[in-house]
Amino acid sequence: MKQSQNGKVFLIGSGPGDPELMTVKAAKRLQTADVVVYDRLVSPEILSMAPDRARMIDVGKLPKHHKIPQEEINSLLVSLARQGLSVVRLKGGDPLIFGRGSEEACELTAAGIEYEYVPGITSAQGAASSVGFPLTHRGLATGVRYVTGHRARDARLDLDWESLADPQTTLVVYMGAMNIGEIAFSLMRYGLPASMPVLAVSAATTTSERRLLSNLGSIAATVAVGDLEAPVLFVIGHVVSLCEEAVALRETRERVLDHA
Amino acid sequence: MKQSQNGKVFLIGSGPGDPELMTVKAAKRLQTADVVVYDRLVSPEILSMAPDRARMIDVGKLPKHHKIPQEEINSLLVSLARQGLSVVRLKGGDPLIFGRGSEEACELTAAGIEYEYVPGITSAQGAASSVGFPLTHRGLATGVRYVTGHRARDARLDLDWESLADPQTTLVVYMGAMNIGEIAFSLMRYGLPASMPVLAVSAATTTSERRLLSNLGSIAATVAVGDLEAPVLFVIGHVVSLCEEAVALRETRERVLDHA
Repeated sequence: MKQSQNGKVFLIGSGPGDPELMTVKAAKRLQTADVVVYDRLVSPEILSMAPDRARMIDVGKLPKHHKIPQEEINSLLVSLARQGLSVVRLKGGDPLIFGRGSEEACELTAAGIEYEYVPGITSAQGAASSVGFPLTHRGLATGVRYVTGHRARDARLDLDWESLADPQTTLVVYMGAMNIGEIAFSLMRYGLPASMPVLAVSAATTTSERRLLSNLGSIAATVAVGDLEAPVLFVIGHVVSLCEEAVALRETRERVLDHA
Repeated sequence: MKQSQNGKVFLIGSGPGDPELMTVKAAKRLQTADVVVYDRLVSPEILSMAPDRARMIDVGKLPKHHKIPQEEINSLLVSLARQGLSVVRLKGGDPLIFGRGSEEACELTAAGIEYEYVPGITSAQGAASSVGFPLTHRGLATGVRYVTGHRARDARLDLDWESLADPQTTLVVYMGAMNIGEIAFSLMRYGLPASMPVLAVSAATTTSERRLLSNLGSIAATVAVGDLEAPVLFVIGHVVSLCEEAVALRETRERVLDHA
């Protein structure tokens, strides 16, 4: 009956950074942890919420800044659970959106280890609520799309530009800083105007949040001098203009009140 | 100085249904409410978390099942805030994804009323974590896309089918039950195979959650006899096959253990 002595793995999204944007369930499950296996995108404030007894394992980087290969993380989770431990696998954002949570779950399933997903607010939602723009809005965006701008070394950026260049869909590019020049160029080549608003955000919802407002024609240059810390999230679409308009409206009102 | 006596409006996403999938911030802000203005998609368990003193206003339906027009909701929020109240505007999912939170925010801004967005886990994420499939997965889906399958009466379903029929992107259709036949037909006409897996989910993450697993060729017939309660979320893409595989693996293992 060794089977029943296995621990359980919780594949938890810690959200965009602000500890209060964790779900109630994520915060509760974290308290049950014997061991926490975490990525570099999990904020220090959230890590500090782990129970004192929990062993903390950073799989986000090794001393030489190489990431631990996914296969080793999978094996680590299986090994810890087989010791009968309650394992919290803590990720930034949502484990099922660019989080590789399902790769870990497949390994756990194959090893006969029980697991539970706990979703998290993904960066696009964090940035939207923090900066103040919608991901969909009647007349401006009928839908929203998340893609990754990251690619393995020497690999081609494998995106369907024709499909992506849709002015009625908000396009959110995760981890796009290295390739934003190519992304912007390709979207313009397939018909998006250079004037299409683009917002670049890093560390959304944290005290380190930084934003750059630009457009497709200028975003690569803007980001090059802007020195945002990776990962950078890019939001491309008409919805971004709503945050400008909101700010402009607010400023107008304040000026009116000042002169009243 | 009437300005400073205005209350504040919190535009809060209550998540997919499970009260524990609210964010910590959403649960906290709800406790400050003098009045809660809520939609029909907010679960009773979540409504019961409002403070006893709070006035509860249902704007999800009128006696004859017509929804209150958005303009009236906007005016109501402004009017309540002008009474100096702390107003919680509680929505299902995320206020900035098909939630019309930004329409309300524009009105509040114009009226000089302060507001704050609090994001929520959107239904796609709730369904993914509850059923157990990813929204992106290496080799199966390079990105994810949310669209709405709802349309105003007599209006055309205004979707770019060619762009949507991308086998490498997980397509999530919100509120699609009425039009799933047309949606599936159009996606197949633009090249998606009839065998593409489709999952239909209603009331994800609640005790009433129901799921139907089908494929593009059969989903309209499956839903017609399945009697899911609206709104129904459709997830179209290869990622859905992972939940099947996970289930199959688990069943195989259990059979092996039974015979051991």
